[in-house]
Formats: sequence, structure tokens, C-alpha cells
Amino acid sequence: MIRVGIVGGTGYTGAELLRILVGHPQVSLTAITSRAEAGTAVADLFAHLRGQVDLLFTEPDLSVLSECDLIFFATPNGTAMKLVPELWGQGTRVIDLAADFRLKDGALWERWYGMPHASPDLLEEAVYGLPELNRDAIRTARLVANPGCYPTAVLLGFLPLLEAGLVDPGWLVADAKSGVSGAGRMAGVGMLMAEVGESFKAYAVGGHRHLPEISRNLAPFAKGELRLTFVPHLVPMIRGIEATLYARLGNSGADLQTLFEGRYAEEPFVDVLPAGSHPETRSVRGSNHCRIAVTEPLGHGTVVVQSVIDNLVKGAAGQAVQNMNLMFGFDESMALTGTALLP
Amino acid sequence: MIRVGIVGGTGYTGAELLRILVGHPQVSLTAITSRAEAGTAVADLFAHLRGQVDLLFTEPDLSVLSECDLIFFATPNGTAMKLVPELWGQGTRVIDLAADFRLKDGALWERWYGMPHASPDLLEEAVYGLPELNRDAIRTARLVANPGCYPTAVLLGFLPLLEAGLVDPGWLVADAKSGVSGAGRMAGVGMLMAEVGESFKAYAVGGHRHLPEISRNLAPFAKGELRLTFVPHLVPMIRGIEATLYARLGNSGADLQTLFEGRYAEEPFVDVLPAGSHPETRSVRGSNHCRIAVTEPLGHGTVVVQSVIDNLVKGAAGQAVQNMNLMFGFDESMALTGTALLP
Amino acid sequence: MIRVGIVGGTGYTGAELLRILVGHPQVSLTAITSRAEAGTAVADLFAHLRGQVDLLFTEPDLSVLSECDLIFFATPNGTAMKLVPELWGQGTRVIDLAADFRLKDGALWERWYGMPHASPDLLEEAVYGLPELNRDAIRTARLVANPGCYPTAVLLGFLPLLEAGLVDPGWLVADAKSGVSGAGRMAGVGMLMAEVGESFKAYAVGGHRHLPEISRNLAPFAKGELRLTFVPHLVPMIRGIEATLYARLGNSGADLQTLFEGRYAEEPFVDVLPAGSHPETRSVRGSNHCRIAVTEPLGHGTVVVQSVIDNLVKGAAGQAVQNMNLMFGFDESMALTGTALLP
Amino acid sequence: MIRVGIVGGTGYTGAELLRILVGHPQVSLTAITSRAEAGTAVADLFAHLRGQVDLLFTEPDLSVLSECDLIFFATPNGTAMKLVPELWGQGTRVIDLAADFRLKDGALWERWYGMPHASPDLLEEAVYGLPELNRDAIRTARLVANPGCYPTAVLLGFLPLLEAGLVDPGWLVADAKSGVSGAGRMAGVGMLMAEVGESFKAYAVGGHRHLPEISRNLAPFAKGELRLTFVPHLVPMIRGIEATLYARLGNSGADLQTLFEGRYAEEPFVDVLPAGSHPETRSVRGSNHCRIAVTEPLGHGTVVVQSVIDNLVKGAAGQAVQNMNLMFGFDESMALTGTALLP
Repeated sequence: MIRVGIVGGTGYTGAELLRILVGHPQVSLTAITSRAEAGTAVADLFAHLRGQVDLLFTEPDLSVLSECDLIFFATPNGTAMKLVPELWGQGTRVIDLAADFRLKDGALWERWYGMPHASPDLLEEAVYGLPELNRDAIRTARLVANPGCYPTAVLLGFLPLLEAGLVDPGWLVADAKSGVSGAGRMAGVGMLMAEVGESFKAYAVGGHRHLPEISRNLAPFAKGELRLTFVPHLVPMIRGIEATLYARLGNSGADLQTLFEGRYAEEPFVDVLPAGSHPETRSVRGSNHCRIAVTEPLGHGTVVVQSVIDNLVKGAAGQAVQNMNLMFGFDESMALTGTALLP
Repeated sequence: MIRVGIVGGTGYTGAELLRILVGHPQVSLTAITSRAEAGTAVADLFAHLRGQVDLLFTEPDLSVLSECDLIFFATPNGTAMKLVPELWGQGTRVIDLAADFRLKDGALWERWYGMPHASPDLLEEAVYGLPELNRDAIRTARLVANPGCYPTAVLLGFLPLLEAGLVDPGWLVADAKSGVSGAGRMAGVGMLMAEVGESFKAYAVGGHRHLPEISRNLAPFAKGELRLTFVPHLVPMIRGIEATLYARLGNSGADLQTLFEGRYAEEPFVDVLPAGSHPETRSVRGSNHCRIAVTEPLGHGTVVVQSVIDNLVKGAAGQAVQNMNLMFGFDESMALTGTALLP
Repeated sequence: MIRVGIVGGTGYTGAELLRILVGHPQVSLTAITSRAEAGTAVADLFAHLRGQVDLLFTEPDLSVLSECDLIFFATPNGTAMKLVPELWGQGTRVIDLAADFRLKDGALWERWYGMPHASPDLLEEAVYGLPELNRDAIRTARLVANPGCYPTAVLLGFLPLLEAGLVDPGWLVADAKSGVSGAGRMAGVGMLMAEVGESFKAYAVGGHRHLPEISRNLAPFAKGELRLTFVPHLVPMIRGIEATLYARLGNSGADLQTLFEGRYAEEPFVDVLPAGSHPETRSVRGSNHCRIAVTEPLGHGTVVVQSVIDNLVKGAAGQAVQNMNLMFGFDESMALTGTALLP
Repeated sequence: MIRVGIVGGTGYTGAELLRILVGHPQVSLTAITSRAEAGTAVADLFAHLRGQVDLLFTEPDLSVLSECDLIFFATPNGTAMKLVPELWGQGTRVIDLAADFRLKDGALWERWYGMPHASPDLLEEAVYGLPELNRDAIRTARLVANPGCYPTAVLLGFLPLLEAGLVDPGWLVADAKSGVSGAGRMAGVGMLMAEVGESFKAYAVGGHRHLPEISRNLAPFAKGELRLTFVPHLVPMIRGIEATLYARLGNSGADLQTLFEGRYAEEPFVDVLPAGSHPETRSVRGSNHCRIAVTEPLGHGTVVVQSVIDNLVKGAAGQAVQNMNLMFGFDESMALTGTALLP
């Protein structure tokens, strides 16, 4: 049994951490902090947790937090990088669900996130928490950078192709689509239902922060310069990401199905669908799975990968718990075996 | 460990039974039948069950079914009433999720369901499976009529008032609203997303089949004739029922909050919210809870109850499993403790 | 051709006024104001108006506004009541789409709106702009209080019954449901799509501001005290209101269909559907119609009325233009003949 | 004033034709046929047309149809190709909204549509009704093949690039997304709201019928073999198509904005948005516009085009009326000037 704290628990990833952790037999929830909601019962803010979570939100208090074995940061970008060094002395380990430790280069981070990095020295130490890529390093990590939602879906789709050297790394396209919960639980006009319901659009076409995160993790496998065009879109639904990926095959006719099935044969949370499938986001709603299909339409030399996840689970809180399980030697699937909610 | 079969597993209640039962430690899923899909793997029809359910759909086969300890009928109305008598000899018990055994009067049943009842003699034996009303009878029942989705939400809201004799039974109004999954997984134009999305309407205003089911269960508590006006509405969402109930108080000023909290204090799946609350259907999405709030607006002598459930869980498959737990002496909440999925 | 100004044009009612007025052959749009967006082109904020509206938002400027023949206030509650007196000298007429002039009693207004009324002397002069009730007074009005969205739907449904003295005014129930655009285009967490999508709830059960507005307009027809219970609900769709109304008939068997058809026979925007109909909100999406059905289910003595409108059209901007047409002697339907958008 | 008939008026494109044509001052609606609904009033099937359309659906009758100046076929694929020859003698002109005449090669048509073509001789005569490509030919056409919804959005986005020879025709990607009304008003399980709401997926990845239609119209401008990968997706909304197009620029740095603005400067229904824009489908909901944005993200050599239309308007009925206006010498925008409905 480990003591776990959550910093910043009023957003969707915080709520989702709670939903998953209340079912985890090895976790004792010790603290959940929120400056804005300090003193409020968690169950008063999130009615679905009535009867499940007895905690109140509290002010973040280092003395309490540092008694935890693990802290999840479910805070906006720029928060964890300031607080993590203060937790370091006590042996508390950290999983950051924000973007603070996802890049290795502080200057690059500053360019994309618009502020100087407060702990550039920790960037190198942080382990990028995609178990399918870095499982062993995650087990011993002190600081895990939990991947972004889009990068999780896109990386799991591109990795087998890049690792096998089957596609031209100079012309990758990732056309990704996300439900609105990806934008978080923040006041604003832009995500009102009357603004985003019954409509569809691309956004950040000029460049999205998840682009360097994806590219950095694909580049080591690329023979030659990696050029990825990544366009995110907003879908009028709450949960789910679908990424449709396009790449040019070096030679047509590779056995893509076997490649993908082999790559993920031992992965508990990556499900390669039969040839000809069309994965739906609802098939992973509330679950930690990524479902993938791959094909080369009409033998034209272009491979198309479809990858779906729940952005709040495999794309955030679920993957964070998967990382926690690895870090503390629990079964990797513990508390993550729930079935998706369909319909 | 009991052997369980499901007859008619290709609809939403069948799929939801599967989702819940795969997590039940005392259930061995033995058979799931579908004439139309016999030979198809369950996981090929329902991708969210990949890796969770290995069964194939099979033709209904009495010799196989009668070896089960329990059969769930997740069939259209009119199926169970024909098959149940054939299962009777072997000691197999039955929970019917359709409407076949929900009324006691065969003639009344025929009037509302448009066909003669095939087993009118079983109507009396069947126990109406609302645990909050009939818990003890359910424990020993051989045949349980699982309540309809609307009746569950409406009965849990009206029962405390009727039982306490606080309201005029001659003027009850239930304005109920359901997501589209309540209509089932049936081909048709009427429930196309392009027909029912982004729109709202009442239906069956002239009389809905759930009206006699509700009235029959309230009438024993009514001092005088019971007259209920029940109007269902269709909400452009998938899961969830909200019922807003109106009744005239005999005398204003009763302590309604205490009444409701007391009535449901020991109920594991009925959650009375604090005064002034507005329960949301999403707070029970995927969970077996009914959340209820009660108030008398402006002291005008009218009590307003809001009651929300997930129509596929407490309104169907979850309540069926709750009944199964009672029938077989398992913990009533077994496999039903999952948290609602929000957002 | 009249000169028209809009004060507060960045919300949904402002945008909808623009959509309708660009098609009005007798209107010259002179000014549209917004403090926050002054200097921005209307078409840059509302892409659907590109090529249709050339105006920029401007600071509200009394000298410009007072040159208009008519000002629409599409502002939050509490704005028009301060500015209208300053416009009075020049003969400019006013239609207020907010609630400032909808009640006659300043103290009552203050109780429900939480601020003192700035122009209580104008309350008496203002004409409540429901043409089906006050057509003649609207023609000559200097100041029209455009009805609220819920009151429009509820009043049109209850008026025939109250006027005819058919129902008990002491026990009226209005269970109303609105799409999310009714909450306006205001930053906040509560109306995020991730909060209100795929969910349904009642709100303001304890008392909603539209209650006194409805009651005040029904009371003159009530024989005895009028007691209305009004419960609004939030529907996960953008446009549309459906109100299901319940009242106790004095004597069962009245010819309700004939009553309603007769009452609205000459009304261009009230459409009484055939007996047994279930009006859908989508049948009036984008149109200025109210569609109504009436029935007495099972002859139980309770009349049920279903009334649907588009909350932004007949419930706001469309009705305002209808009032404008009356005030300036144009054809009442001018610019309001567009067909609803279905599907 | 011309006499117009509609064959197959019970689907969404038929209803949308009616919505548009009732506002057309030069059209007299003469007949609307439906075998299934013969004898039913149009307004009984489509409540939004109450008071707008007095016609009944009738059996298709050649003697009536051939008295029309123009027939719209809003029928399933394979119907028009059988009936058109019979209408030919009388001088009646035809616009087919289905796919029967969109390809020039009967064998290719049979391969994609799974049936032999009944009038292969007419394929050559038919004019592909994309005014932005074939305006002059449409004016004099006897038979117009109205473009598919996806092809309209994709062609308008790719044409300027191909015509200018700026991109490699051997590597085009069109990632397209459509609302559910694109699937038509057909009974089935696949488009139930409970199946497609709150979910997102690709479909027909292996090859969609609109692929050869797009390719055929781009090929004449390609220097070298044209290879297009086209992947359609289903969006949980009713109306709207967004296509995000990707192509490799021959040389980076071309002035794409000027190219697109110049190409469409005289087009009444193509609106090129300012650089950096993200067109939303709701900005064209109910309108005949296509809104387009173009950019080269990060100067990486890949051009990204975003193109949005309403699939039922510019993607079907609106474009058909635009073609009719051209064929009969009316103003091209007649009855098509309505503003999009937003929100």
C-alpha cells in the first residue's frame, strides 16, 4: 500500500485519477489539493464520486505532500516544474500529467510553451512515460513525464513503422481528432457547448505543442530527417481521440498486419484490430486501451494507421496509473481492467 | 460460482450485462444466444469487449440453457413468456429484462402490449425486481420481472411520498426524459442520429406502456384512486433518465429531506442529495445508482422530486445483477461498485 | 426604410438579430455596439456573417444611437434600464431583449434580479411584446419588453386554457427544457460542452426568474389564485425549447383541439398540430414558429400541452423583429418567413 | 417561372431541395414523388415544411414528370440512370443528385457501385456540376451530375494547387470528416444515435466511391500520375463536412493565400478565409458556401488546406439549385443567399 497525493485535482485528469485510484487495492489516497477549492469536499464538486471519495480539497502543503510515496501533478503546464525540486529531498516520486518534463531541451520547451523552464536540469532525468517505449526506465524513474493525449495515440501508431524502417520519415502526416474534454475544465467562451457542439474544425494548424513531443520520440528511429505534419481537430463529443496517420511506404506490400501484431503482442493495453477494421473511439471510452488498425489502401504505397484512445485514460490518468504500477512493482494492469462503456 | 446464460445478447441491455458480469467473481458466463448472430464472436460485434469476453453467440438451446443456474432474458417483449415455462423443470431461475412479467393482470398486459400473454399463470409468481420495494421476495424468487427504466426512476422518487401518505394520489405528474439507448439497438429511421440529434420532443403522450407498471406499484400505498400522468421525452444523448415528479402536498411544510434520507438510508444504490441539489444524469453514467433530490418550491404546496439513473444500468442490466446478487446470496453490490464515468 | 441599432451585439441574440435583419428589406443597420469588441469587424467574430455584414462593432455612442429609429438592446439584464431614459428625447423607440422591463412591479423585479431597478417609472409604460397577447399595444409602443424564451413557450401553451377558464389556476405545472444557447455566450465552466454534453438535469427548481414573468401574464385570466410550478431543464443541444404543460381540467372532455385551433387561427407564427402530434424542437430550428399540440391523456382530467420554439428566434430575436414589424407598420412576417433547418 | 419536379423526395436531400425551392421566385414546384409515401402530405412527413409546401407525395408518373422543365433526382444510386432516358424526348432537363452520372467510364462505375450502368451512353453527355470547374458547360447541359459531398469539399481545396502545378500529384492525402446526415435517411442500425453519437471513427479506409470521382476531376491538371489517399470519417453531428488536405509542395514559399484568393475571387460561394484561419462547419450550416483556408505549417514543404461545406447544401441540394440557376439563366445565387445558422 502506497500513499498517494494529487496536486491540482479539480480538472478532468484529476477527477479521472480519482475514479481509477478508488478502485486500486494498493493505493491510499492521502491528499488532493486545490487552491481554489480548498475546504470543499471532492464529492461536492464531482457528484459521481459521492460515496467513493471522502477527502476534502486542501491547500498544497509540502509537508503533507512529501510524506507521500508518489505525487501526481494534474496541474496546468508550468506548475510541476516549480514544485518538484522541493519534493525531491524526501524520496517522493512524481508523475507529471502536464507537459513540463516531456521535452529534453529547455530552449525548445520555452519556445513552444512561452515561458522559461524552471527546472531545466530535471529535463534529462525525467523519463517519458510511454510504457510501450520506455517500460524499463519507467520502473526505476523518480520523475515520469506522462505523455500528452495526442502523442500517445500518434506514437503508438507510428512507432512500429519507424522502428521497422518501412516508411519515409521525411513525409509523415498525423491528422488527429479529439473530444472536447482535452481542453480541460477551464472557464472560457471557446469550449461552450453552443460554440463547439454540432460543429467540426481543425485548430493550431500552424503548429501545436504536441508536435515536438511526438517528433522527439520518433526521431531516434528515423533514417534521415523526420518531418511530421500534425493537425489536430475538435470533435463535438466529450471523450476520445482518433488519429489517422499517413506515411509513404518504401516498398509496397509489406505485411503490415503481422508487423503491428508482433510489435504489440505482449502489450496489455494495445489492441491491434483485424485487417479491414475501423476502430471507434467509443470502444475505448473509459478504458486504458489503444485500439489500432493498419492498412495500405488500394496498394498505392501509402500506409494508413487508425489509432483510438480515451484521451482522459490512456491519454492521461490511466496511463499515469499504468506508470505508477510499473514504478512500484504492482501488476501493470492493476485498477485498469475495467471495460469500456458502450454505448 | 454460478452458471449464467443470456438469451438475446445483441442489444444494449445484453451488452451491458456482459460488461458488468465479466467483473463478477461469482459468475461463470456459460452461454449467450442470438439467432441472428449465431456463430459470431461477441467481441466481433462489440469491440469494447475484445479481450474480455471469449464467447460466441449461439442459437438458443434449451439443453444448454437449462444447465444454467440463472438465465437473463435480454430479449424483445414477448419472448421470455414463451420460453420460461420450458426452463422450469430444471430449477433454472430467470430474470427477465423485458416487460413480460411486470404486470399481474394478463388482460391488462395484452391491452398495453398488443398480444395475448403466453404464460398468464406465471404473472402472479413473478416478483417485481425493485430491491428497494421487494428485497425479501426477490431473494427467494424463481422468476424476477426486472423493472422498466422509467418505472425505476419514477417509483424511487414517488414511493417515499406515497408510503408516507403525504401527497394527493389523484394528481401525480411524472415528466420523464430518456437518452436514445432506451429505444434499443433496432434498425429503423426514427432513432437515426440525423432524426433525434439536436432535437427534443415528448412521445407517447397518449399513453406509454410504463404507465400501468408504475401505477400498479404505487397503488397499494395510495389512499384513494391513483391518477398518474406520465409523459416520456427523448433527449439527444445516449444514456440516462431524468424524471421530474410533481405532486400536491396534503399539508405544506413536511420535512421532505428527512423523509427521503430516512427511507433510503440503508439502500446501497439510492443516493439522496442535499437540499437544493440538481442531480445530473452524467453523475450516474455507467453506475447502478439512483440519485434523488426533493423540494417544495416557494412553499407552494407542490413537491418536486428529481430522480436520475442510467437507463441501461439501474434501469436495466445493473438492477438485474443486483437482483441476481440477492437471489443467490451474494453481496448485493458485487460487481456494481464501479464509479460513474464523468465527464 | 428605418435606421436600426443594436446595443450589445456579441451574444447569441445579437448574432441572431443580425442574421434576420440582413434579410429585412426595410431595415438599414446603422450601428452595432460592444465595448469589449469595439473596432472588430462583426464578420471576424461571427464567420457565418462574412459577406453579409460589413459593420464594425463600436463603442456605444448616444449621439449615434439616438439617430436610429429603433434600438434593440441585446445586453445582459440591468443595462437597458440605465440607457433607455437617455434615448428618450429623440423619439428613438426601443425593444429590450433582456428582462429589464418584463415585470410591472419594481420591488418584485429587484427581488428576482438582485438589483434595484434603475427606471421603475418606465415599467408601466413598457409593453410586453408577445404579439399573440398584446398586438395592438405593441404597434404604438415606444418601449417593448421582449418576452423571455421560456415565457414565450409556456404562455402560448397555457393562454387558451386560462382564457377559456377550462383549468384550475391553482395547480399549473410547466416542465420546460432548453438547449444550451439559452445561457448565452458567456465565459464559464458550467456550460462547457464537457460539462453539459451527454447529460440532462433540472436547474433552478427552487425558483427561476421567468416564473413571475409567466405568472403575471396568466393571472389576469385566472379565476382564483394562480399557482404555477415551473421547472426548467438543460438539454444537450444548442437551440430549442420544449415545454410540457400540465393542468387539471374543470370538466373532462372539452374540445381542446378546436379551442387551440380557433385561438391561433389568425396567428402567423403559432401552428397547432393535429391531435396526437408530438412537436419536435428541430421543426422550428431557425424559424419564428411556435408549434403546439394539446391532449387529455386517457381522459384522466389532466390536459397536457406540448409547445416548442427556437429559443433564439421566437424566444428572442425573431420575436423582437416581429415586434419591430408591428411597431413600424411592416408586414408582421417580413424577414421571418424562412423555413426551419431540418435535419 | 419553370416547372420543377423532384423524384425521391423523402430523404434529406429531397427535404433540403424543398426548403430551398420554396424560397425561389422562379420555380413552380409541380411534383414530388415517393413510392413509399405516395398520398402522404409532404408537410406530414416533414413538420418543418408545414405551411410552406402543400404538395402530396405521388407515385412517379412519367407523363407528369415529362411536363416539367427540370427534374431533380434525389434517389438512391441506380435509379436515375434507368429513368432519365425515358424523360429525354420531351426536352425535360435533369439534375441527378445521386452518383449515376458522375464518372465517365461505365466499367469503372460498375466496379465502384456494384451494378452495371443502365445508360452508359449518357455518361459522356452528362456535365459534372461543379460550377467552379464547369460553369459554362453547365449552362447548356441537358443532364447534370451533381457532385458528391466529399468531392465538392475536396475538389475546391485541391483545384487551385493542381491547376497551378504547385504540388506533387503522386502524394495527395484527403482526410475528410462528415456529419451523419451524409448517410441519408435509411433504416439501419449503423446510424442510430446510440451507435454513432459520442464517438468518432474512420470508415471505408480501403476505398470509398468518392475517390474515383475526385481523382477523375483532378487528373487533367496533374503533371504525372495522380495518387490520392482519401479517408472519410464520421463525426457525431448532423450537418457539415470538413476536409483537411495535405500535399507536398514542389518548392516551399509559394504565396498560397494569393493563389487561393485569386482563384476564387469571382466565385459567389467560395470564401477564402484570411491566413491563419480555421474554418468551422457551423459557419456554413444551412448555407451554400464553401469556406477554405490554406497554409504551409512551419515552412516544412507540406501545404495544408481546410475546406468546409454543409454536405446537404453546397454538398447536395444547394449546389443542385446553383446548377439549376445556371441552366435556366437565373441569377446564380437566387434562393441561395440565406445566412448560415449559428450557433
